[in-house]
Amino acid sequence: MGGPKVVALAGGVGGAKLAHGLAAHLGERLSVVVNTGDDCERHGLLVMPDHDTVLYNLAGIEQAGLGWGIEGDTYAAMDQLAAYGEEAWFRLGDRDLALHVARSARLRADDGGRLTEVCLGLQRALGLAPRILPMSDAPVPTQVRTAEGWLDFQEYFVHQRQTPDVLELRFAGVADASPTPEVAAAFGEASAIVLCPSNPLVSIGPILAVPGMRSLLAAAIARGARVAAVSPIIGGRALKGPADRMLAALGHESSALGVARLYADLVDVFVLDNVDADAAPAVEALGMRTLVTDTVMTDDASRARLASEVLAALR
Amino acid sequence: MGGPKVVALAGGVGGAKLAHGLAAHLGERLSVVVNTGDDCERHGLLVMPDHDTVLYNLAGIEQAGLGWGIEGDTYAAMDQLAAYGEEAWFRLGDRDLALHVARSARLRADDGGRLTEVCLGLQRALGLAPRILPMSDAPVPTQVRTAEGWLDFQEYFVHQRQTPDVLELRFAGVADASPTPEVAAAFGEASAIVLCPSNPLVSIGPILAVPGMRSLLAAAIARGARVAAVSPIIGGRALKGPADRMLAALGHESSALGVARLYADLVDVFVLDNVDADAAPAVEALGMRTLVTDTVMTDDASRARLASEVLAALR
Repeated sequence: MGGPKVVALAGGVGGAKLAHGLAAHLGERLSVVVNTGDDCERHGLLVMPDHDTVLYNLAGIEQAGLGWGIEGDTYAAMDQLAAYGEEAWFRLGDRDLALHVARSARLRADDGGRLTEVCLGLQRALGLAPRILPMSDAPVPTQVRTAEGWLDFQEYFVHQRQTPDVLELRFAGVADASPTPEVAAAFGEASAIVLCPSNPLVSIGPILAVPGMRSLLAAAIARGARVAAVSPIIGGRALKGPADRMLAALGHESSALGVARLYADLVDVFVLDNVDADAAPAVEALGMRTLVTDTVMTDDASRARLASEVLAALR
Repeated sequence: MGGPKVVALAGGVGGAKLAHGLAAHLGERLSVVVNTGDDCERHGLLVMPDHDTVLYNLAGIEQAGLGWGIEGDTYAAMDQLAAYGEEAWFRLGDRDLALHVARSARLRADDGGRLTEVCLGLQRALGLAPRILPMSDAPVPTQVRTAEGWLDFQEYFVHQRQTPDVLELRFAGVADASPTPEVAAAFGEASAIVLCPSNPLVSIGPILAVPGMRSLLAAAIARGARVAAVSPIIGGRALKGPADRMLAALGHESSALGVARLYADLVDVFVLDNVDADAAPAVEALGMRTLVTDTVMTDDASRARLASEVLAALR
């Protein structure tokens, strides 16, 4: 497929859904830069929740309804891990486990290559046309400060079910991280950039916090690339996850407008849901165009339709 | 349970069956020293076929009929590993995989301890009373020379289904290995030692080849410990595995008598199957007593019965 190339920035399930919609139009012309701040080690294996959610969605094997994990997966290994006394609150399915096993084996192999190279190999094995690119090859674990102190992200997100109030965020080691050559090349070729409807603070935030990432965006914009962002907040609420409470707790407005303010320096077109149409003038006052449409992606068709509208608005 | 302590030396399925029979009588008074020459890395994980076969038999969860693996196990992770292009000829079940994942994680952990300590922790988690002790904490991989050259043991045993003629065996790194403190302590307390019906060349052989192991046996014998061996060859054939062909190929006799000759310097009581009763005088001429009985273990009762007869013969 010839034609303009697109970079999408994505985190969790909402981002994976739009990435899937974009892939339907773009195929190999799409590169998805994923947050790796959620990555963690479980049972000695590297688990990459955001990469893997995008992978499973692009491969069309994600759990229906949930959007993460693999549809119809079983938990025989997990139950047996629990029998050996392993922590079992982060439940990995058997087919999902295979990804973490294969990836960890390749990363440990002498000739295994960088994280990005290993991930690309796994993606090719599943026949993916787009590329999913970790934001960095170096670990940048997101940590969340609650009344208990600093927690690893998955301890807060999965084990404590996002219940505690978030007082502060940090991206450990981010100062030493850098965008990979593959990420730099993708931005270098992109004529459009899409910030997917992912948590702006802990999905898109870590990507933009990697030193050099904003410069890559700025260079792309200077070259004429256009940038769209799709609000993950609809009617003041996140469809999934803690973005709404986290925004409010950290001094932002839990609204599409609040998200627009975070992205105002980067974005040409801000995409709001129909229920937030009233906010369009205020978003436009920040210097962005707006696209008001149905942003709830309930099936493959609505993913592709939203992607198509976003791409059209960027032309 | 008070009373005399017993050390069993075991390799594959036959050894695991007799170990299970012995455990029925001895409980925590039994230590099973297992061959680690078959151990291998699969998908970056340490797999210990002999340890694990004994573990699953002692836990009563082994695959009926086969004797290795876990009864009712599924292969979802393995199929997915194959989808990522991982070698799939060594098929690990989902519940079985959990053991390799948990063990490898603990071995890699900074505070994980030695191989023996990690294995004992996993055994305790399954509620085992006997202890299964790796012959050594250091790797001693068995290698098999065929017309193709030197092969890793599992390449010969599983991938090539024991088809090639075996020209030579070696236990790589054995010169640098030593019995663990746990193995030394078990021999130090044993009043009886049982060489289980395992392949004398690639199951019992590697254990006895660890420098210091024969001295531990000799010291136990000098203290009054008695030693029995159960022939893995019945009517000239191995019930399972390549022991018969391997014995013949390497210049030994593929018979109970041929096995007895290999063990003559160690053993007080040699146990032959009823079908080999004719060989008893020749075995006795080597300086051993004989026990002639039914050595085919088809169920838990026959395992316990054979174990009971062996223990009685050693009293």
